Amino acid sequence: MTTDSVPEKFQGFGVDKAENWDKPKLVSYEHKKINPYDVVIKNECCGVCYSDIHTIQGNWGKLNRDDLVVGHEIVGKVVAVGDKVTEFKVGQRVGTGANASACRKCNRCKNDNEQYCPEAAPTYNGPDVRSDGYITQGGYASHSIADEQFVFAIPDELESKFVASLLCAGLTVWSPIVRNCGYDATGKTIAIIGLGGLGHLAVQESHAIGAKVVVFSTTASKREEALKLGADEFVATKEDKDWYKTYFDTFDFILSCASGIEGLDLEHYISTLKVNKKFVSVGLPPSDEKFSVSPNSFVAHAASFGSSLLGNKKEVYKMLDLAVKKNVRPWIEEVPISEKSVPETLKRFVKGDVRYRFVLTDFDKFFGDQKD
Amino acid sequence: MTTDSVPEKFQGFGVDKAENWDKPKLVSYEHKKINPYDVVIKNECCGVCYSDIHTIQGNWGKLNRDDLVVGHEIVGKVVAVGDKVTEFKVGQRVGTGANASACRKCNRCKNDNEQYCPEAAPTYNGPDVRSDGYITQGGYASHSIADEQFVFAIPDELESKFVASLLCAGLTVWSPIVRNCGYDATGKTIAIIGLGGLGHLAVQESHAIGAKVVVFSTTASKREEALKLGADEFVATKEDKDWYKTYFDTFDFILSCASGIEGLDLEHYISTLKVNKKFVSVGLPPSDEKFSVSPNSFVAHAASFGSSLLGNKKEVYKMLDLAVKKNVRPWIEEVPISEKSVPETLKRFVKGDVRYRFVLTDFDKFFGDQKD
Repeated sequence: MTTDSVPEKFQGFGVDKAENWDKPKLVSYEHKKINPYDVVIKNECCGVCYSDIHTIQGNWGKLNRDDLVVGHEIVGKVVAVGDKVTEFKVGQRVGTGANASACRKCNRCKNDNEQYCPEAAPTYNGPDVRSDGYITQGGYASHSIADEQFVFAIPDELESKFVASLLCAGLTVWSPIVRNCGYDATGKTIAIIGLGGLGHLAVQESHAIGAKVVVFSTTASKREEALKLGADEFVATKEDKDWYKTYFDTFDFILSCASGIEGLDLEHYISTLKVNKKFVSVGLPPSDEKFSVSPNSFVAHAASFGSSLLGNKKEVYKMLDLAVKKNVRPWIEEVPISEKSVPETLKRFVKGDVRYRFVLTDFDKFFGDQKD
Repeated sequence: MTTDSVPEKFQGFGVDKAENWDKPKLVSYEHKKINPYDVVIKNECCGVCYSDIHTIQGNWGKLNRDDLVVGHEIVGKVVAVGDKVTEFKVGQRVGTGANASACRKCNRCKNDNEQYCPEAAPTYNGPDVRSDGYITQGGYASHSIADEQFVFAIPDELESKFVASLLCAGLTVWSPIVRNCGYDATGKTIAIIGLGGLGHLAVQESHAIGAKVVVFSTTASKREEALKLGADEFVATKEDKDWYKTYFDTFDFILSCASGIEGLDLEHYISTLKVNKKFVSVGLPPSDEKFSVSPNSFVAHAASFGSSLLGNKKEVYKMLDLAVKKNVRPWIEEVPISEKSVPETLKRFVKGDVRYRFVLTDFDKFFGDQKD
């Protein structure tokens, strides 16, 4: 393989323990072994996902390594490829999301569910069994390494900063939407709960495939923005107490993008589904927050409740194609990456001071100036 | 309409309050108004369903009338029909299950989901809005009245006593099986949890449509019976602690027929589903028993959890056809109906002393001997 342009160590913003989640420091670290199917990327920008926060705060379990670097909405240029990589060439612009590799052999890998492979390595904070159990490092960093199955060519029409947020947030909502409503959702009605980083993309994507879209939010503060994003209707559930009566038997699909469970009235939402339809929650709350459900809640509508993880490579390419053709774009705030901006951005995100997504940019400038 | 053979009052076994659930008494009561689409049935036999017990014990809420008569697995002969009934004639053998009527107008009624009509009247203990809110009476009785949408012609090849249990138990498992796996499930693998009145029919039906069937039970006591019913494999979860590892990523569908939730390890069952598949619970526990679930449990498999209610008329006919062609038969114990046998049967059911279904029979003899 070509490795001339792969530095011995990568640089990134690492967190040493959960209590220091808001004090990431610039660190150098050994990169993982480069496997035959791996692509090495010199990062250009990286979106900030709430998963990054949950991970470094320890909400989903402990930090599995020293100086954990998060970030999994990565766009950059290929600087090296493993011997078996066929799709990508050095110099090409690519992206990668929240998975770094998978086994390539199991039923799930062979049937377009590679993101559900039980050996799939997350982009950060998980063991990569094909790299001696190396605990992976994310994209707030100079470089990233991912198996080509999880690397995506970027259409020329899309600017990198707009692609970044699509690769986790955009895909996380896209996959359950199209798996439940198809790529043409004309005639279908989709409910999107929660208008944040995930929800604002879910609205655009649902609208772009032809669905009627109803946005549910607790207050009316985001009404205008929801309509601008493509929502047909907007409901402030705290202000319209009878919302679930109005929408009885209406939805072909409900996607909850709410980050928590508190105050989310599952039983009433279930009654707004048509028969045999699903409520899918892609917001993943802290591990100890649970819905309490009885089969009795679902029986009157043959409803079901579930979740979903990212999307497969085919779905990524369909999503990027949609972004080009239907002008789906994350609403982002660009933040040039620096020792000052990274902690500030994380803290603003936790305070909810974001509409709707941060993207760390100017990696070339920042990491170009650093010494190993 | 022809009403000569409809007595002014019906007779049945009524329970006056939940604490007397095991002391049903023979009572006479006014029948509901006969509507244009209604069919009046002189009952021949009636299956005993655990829903009957839950209802008279007050587990699902209060008893809504004096002398509540339960029973919703009814076979008998048509003795009268409303003016608009087209499918049935006086003298014909028919069955009816757990619904007595619906609105005939809503989206659900018009789209083969009549059992999910928000105005559907249950066969007992619910208001029939089309009969002035009459609280319906079930089939441990001389006669029953149901809208023809919920009345089914019985193929000559099937004896009445075997049809009864199919009309609630058989249908309750059949509908979610075929809605999730199709009418030809060749190549699919279905898990059935709990081998009782529902489960023993789910095994036969799943096997009859070509699925590979794995039965899960807590102990090994029903192994031989499961295999005889058509199961390909049997797992005693208390004896094989690693069962969920063995069956990782195996099932196209899981149907839980367990009557309660306690000890049912939902998280591990979810991991045995293939990607994007469902766990459906048709056992309906007391209202206060709930599963506690986190989106995090479902995310690794894009799984979902839900429930299901009976089946539509088309599904009933497909089920009866399957019963004829593939010899699907409830395993029943016949109990000639009497003032002694009804309380005894209910008590035996609560003790679990049943394999696998009771059918009250000889209605002609018993009610023929009674005076109004």
